[in-house]
Amino acid sequence: MSYDPTGLDPQRTINDLKELRALTGDENGAQRVAFSDMWVTARQFMRDKLADLPIEVEVDEAGNQWATLVGKSDDALLIGGHIDSVPNGGWLDGSLNLLAGVQVMRHLASQGTPPVTIRLVDWADEEGARFGRSLFGSSAVSGHMNPDDLRNLQDKDGIRLQDALERVGVNLDRALDAKKQLQNAKAYLELHIEQGPVLETMNLPLGTVLGTFGVERHSIRFVGQAAHAGSTPMHLRRDALAACAKLELEIREIAKRNGGVCTMGRVETKPGIVTSVVETCDCLLDQRHLDADALAKMLQEAKDASEKFAQQENVSVAWTRLWQIEPILFNEDLRKMTDEAIQETAGASHRLPSGPLHDAAEVARAGVPTVMLFVQSLRGLSHTKLEDTKPEHLVMSVEALDRLAFKTIEWMQKG
Amino acid sequence: MSYDPTGLDPQRTINDLKELRALTGDENGAQRVAFSDMWVTARQFMRDKLADLPIEVEVDEAGNQWATLVGKSDDALLIGGHIDSVPNGGWLDGSLNLLAGVQVMRHLASQGTPPVTIRLVDWADEEGARFGRSLFGSSAVSGHMNPDDLRNLQDKDGIRLQDALERVGVNLDRALDAKKQLQNAKAYLELHIEQGPVLETMNLPLGTVLGTFGVERHSIRFVGQAAHAGSTPMHLRRDALAACAKLELEIREIAKRNGGVCTMGRVETKPGIVTSVVETCDCLLDQRHLDADALAKMLQEAKDASEKFAQQENVSVAWTRLWQIEPILFNEDLRKMTDEAIQETAGASHRLPSGPLHDAAEVARAGVPTVMLFVQSLRGLSHTKLEDTKPEHLVMSVEALDRLAFKTIEWMQKG
Repeated sequence: MSYDPTGLDPQRTINDLKELRALTGDENGAQRVAFSDMWVTARQFMRDKLADLPIEVEVDEAGNQWATLVGKSDDALLIGGHIDSVPNGGWLDGSLNLLAGVQVMRHLASQGTPPVTIRLVDWADEEGARFGRSLFGSSAVSGHMNPDDLRNLQDKDGIRLQDALERVGVNLDRALDAKKQLQNAKAYLELHIEQGPVLETMNLPLGTVLGTFGVERHSIRFVGQAAHAGSTPMHLRRDALAACAKLELEIREIAKRNGGVCTMGRVETKPGIVTSVVETCDCLLDQRHLDADALAKMLQEAKDASEKFAQQENVSVAWTRLWQIEPILFNEDLRKMTDEAIQETAGASHRLPSGPLHDAAEVARAGVPTVMLFVQSLRGLSHTKLEDTKPEHLVMSVEALDRLAFKTIEWMQKG
Repeated sequence: MSYDPTGLDPQRTINDLKELRALTGDENGAQRVAFSDMWVTARQFMRDKLADLPIEVEVDEAGNQWATLVGKSDDALLIGGHIDSVPNGGWLDGSLNLLAGVQVMRHLASQGTPPVTIRLVDWADEEGARFGRSLFGSSAVSGHMNPDDLRNLQDKDGIRLQDALERVGVNLDRALDAKKQLQNAKAYLELHIEQGPVLETMNLPLGTVLGTFGVERHSIRFVGQAAHAGSTPMHLRRDALAACAKLELEIREIAKRNGGVCTMGRVETKPGIVTSVVETCDCLLDQRHLDADALAKMLQEAKDASEKFAQQENVSVAWTRLWQIEPILFNEDLRKMTDEAIQETAGASHRLPSGPLHDAAEVARAGVPTVMLFVQSLRGLSHTKLEDTKPEHLVMSVEALDRLAFKTIEWMQKG
C-alpha cells in the first residue's frame, strides 16, 4: 500500500473547521462544552460530514462517538480527537484532530476497502471544563475511571455530572463497559495543536510527541507571624511571603537542572494588608517531567528547598498533594513513523514532550501502541478565541496525519 | 518644683483601665469605635474620672475632648491620648495614655495650682477604623485636614463621615476652628504602648520615641504572559511572579542597608490557576524611615530593583503611589527629658522610632514641641484583644509620664 496523496483534500479540513466555528462558536470563541446542546449540535455536524462514506457511527457507553470504516481485517487503527471545547475556546483544539481524521478516512475510503479497520473516535469531555474532570470518555475506555469518584461532581449551577450524562443518554454506571471498544485496537494516532511555543520558536510546522508529562501538583502553605509593618524591625520578622518568594525562584532552577517544568501559578497572602507582614502564604506548585525518576527528584528538591527556606525565615511549611499522574511514553515504532511522515511532509521534524494531557495518554495506558503529532500553535495560545495556526501548517498537519495513517496500516499488516 | 511621687497612684490607672474594659468591651475586645454609642459612653467615663478635680471639660469643633486644669500661667502643657479603639481592639491602645494622664493631673492638682495650665486631650477618631481616615481630630487641630476630602467618606453601612459626626454634635465645616486649641500650647506629651517587639526583645520596659516614620506606600503591578504550565519551556516564560518574588527578597536588603523597614503585605496573582504561568502580579509595598532622605533612597532603590527584575524576566512593571507622609521628628529637649524620666523610673532607657503614626505627629507638625514615650508591648501585639503589657510596666509607664510632666513644666517655666 504505497502512499499516493490523490484524493486527500486538506483545504477541506480547514473549510470544515470554519463551518464548525460558525455553527458552534460566538464572538467569544468556541462554545462546545461537553454534554451541552452545542456539543450535541457539533456531534451531529461530525456525523453529517461522514454521511456520504461507507461508515457506521455509534456512541459507546461512556458517550464517545465512534465512526468505523470496516476493513479487510478486524484489527483497528484508531484516530482520535474531541469535539468538546472549553467555554470561549479556540477553533482547533480537539476538532482539528477529528476533521483531519475525516479527511484521512475519506482518502482511505476512496481507495476501496482498506486492509484494516479504521475508526475515528470523538472522545467525550476531554476538557473537563464543566465538572473539573478531564479525559472522561477516554479514561472510561482505558479503565482508569471510577464512577464513584465522579458521581457527585457538580457544575457551577449545582448540576451533578451523573445527571448531565443522563441528559445525553449516558449511564455513568455502565460507562466502563466502553472498554470493549479497544478490543481490536492495534494503534492509536492523534494530531493536536501544540498549545505551546516550542515549534513556533524553532520555526517548525510539525513535531513528534514523545509522550505526556507526569505531573505532581501540590499546594504549599508557609506560616509565619503577622506583625505591624511599621513597628517590627526586619530582623524580628517571620515573613511567610519571603520563604514563598525564595521557593518561586528556586523551582525554576530545579526545573532547568532536571529538564522539566515547574510553575507556581498562584500565591495568596494573609492577612494581605499593606500594614502587616504576611502571616500565611499559600501557593500552588505544578511540576512536570517526561521521566518518572526525574519528576520524583524535582518534587524532592522542591520539598527540601521549601524546608530550608522555611527554616531560614523561621516559618513553618506544609505540603498537600492535589493530584499526580505518571509520565506516559508513546510507542517508539510509531514515533519513528511519525518522524518520517513529518519529514516527508515538511522537510524537518522535532521530538517534543506534551505538557498538557491528552486522550492519547489514556489510550497508551490501556496498552494500545499510541503516538501523537503536534502542529505549531501561534504564540503558544490555546483555550482562547485567539488560538490559531497558520493555514499552510494546518494543510501540512492533515497530510502528515494521512501519511502516518498509511505507514501505520503497513506496520499493522507486518504484525 | 522638685519631683515628689507622693499622691501619684499608678495602680489606680490599671484599675481605671480594667473598669473601662468591663464597661466598653466584650469577649472580643474593646469596642470603642469613634462616634459610636460605646465611644460616647467611654467619654462620659473619662469625665466621671475627672469629676472630683478642679477641671473644666469641653469638646472642641473637631470633637476632641479637652480637660483643663488652669494654672498660674496660660502657657499649656498638653497630655494626649485617644479613647477610641479599633473594633475588637486592645485594652491599652490610646486609653492608657489618657488614664495615665488622669493620674498625672490628679498628682499635679494635689499640689495646688500648677505653675502652668495642664490640658488632657482625648483626640477624636485616632484609629480611623470606621471611615479609613485616622488622626481625624488631631489633624483638624494641626490644620492638616481638609473637610472636602472627608465629607463623602462612607462606612461599610454607607453612612457618611459627615453624618456620623453630626450625630455626635460635630459640624465638619467648623472642624478646623479647633486649631485655636493649640494657641497657648507649649509642649505635648504622649505615652503609648509600643505595638511592636523592640522593647520586649531588649528586655526594657520603656523607651523614648525619636519621632514617627515617614511612609511611602505603593501598589506595584508586574505584567508578563499567561502560558500553559505544561507546554511552555522555562526559558520561554514571562513570569510576573518571578519578578515580584525577586522584589520581595530585595526590599528586605534595601531596608537593612538603609536602616528602615520595607514590607510586601499582599501579593495577588492572575489568572491564579495551577496550570498557568502568572501573567499579572500585583503587590503592595510599604516603606518607612525616620529620615526623609533615607526614605526617598529606599523608594528609589526599590523602583530601580523592580525595573531591573522586570527586564530580567521580560515583564513590565508599573508603580502607583497609594499614600505618603514625611517623617516627623520629636523635640530634642523633650526627648532628653524623656530619657531622664525613664532612667529615673526604670534604670535604663532606649531611643526608638515609631512605626505606626500617632496624634503626636500631628501636634508636632503644628509646631508644638512634642515627645512620646513607649511602654513595652507583650509579643508586639496590638489591635487585638491579645494586646497586653505587664502590670509592673504599666505602673512604671505612669510614673515615667508623671516625672516627664514635672520636668516639662520646669522646662516651660525656663522659657
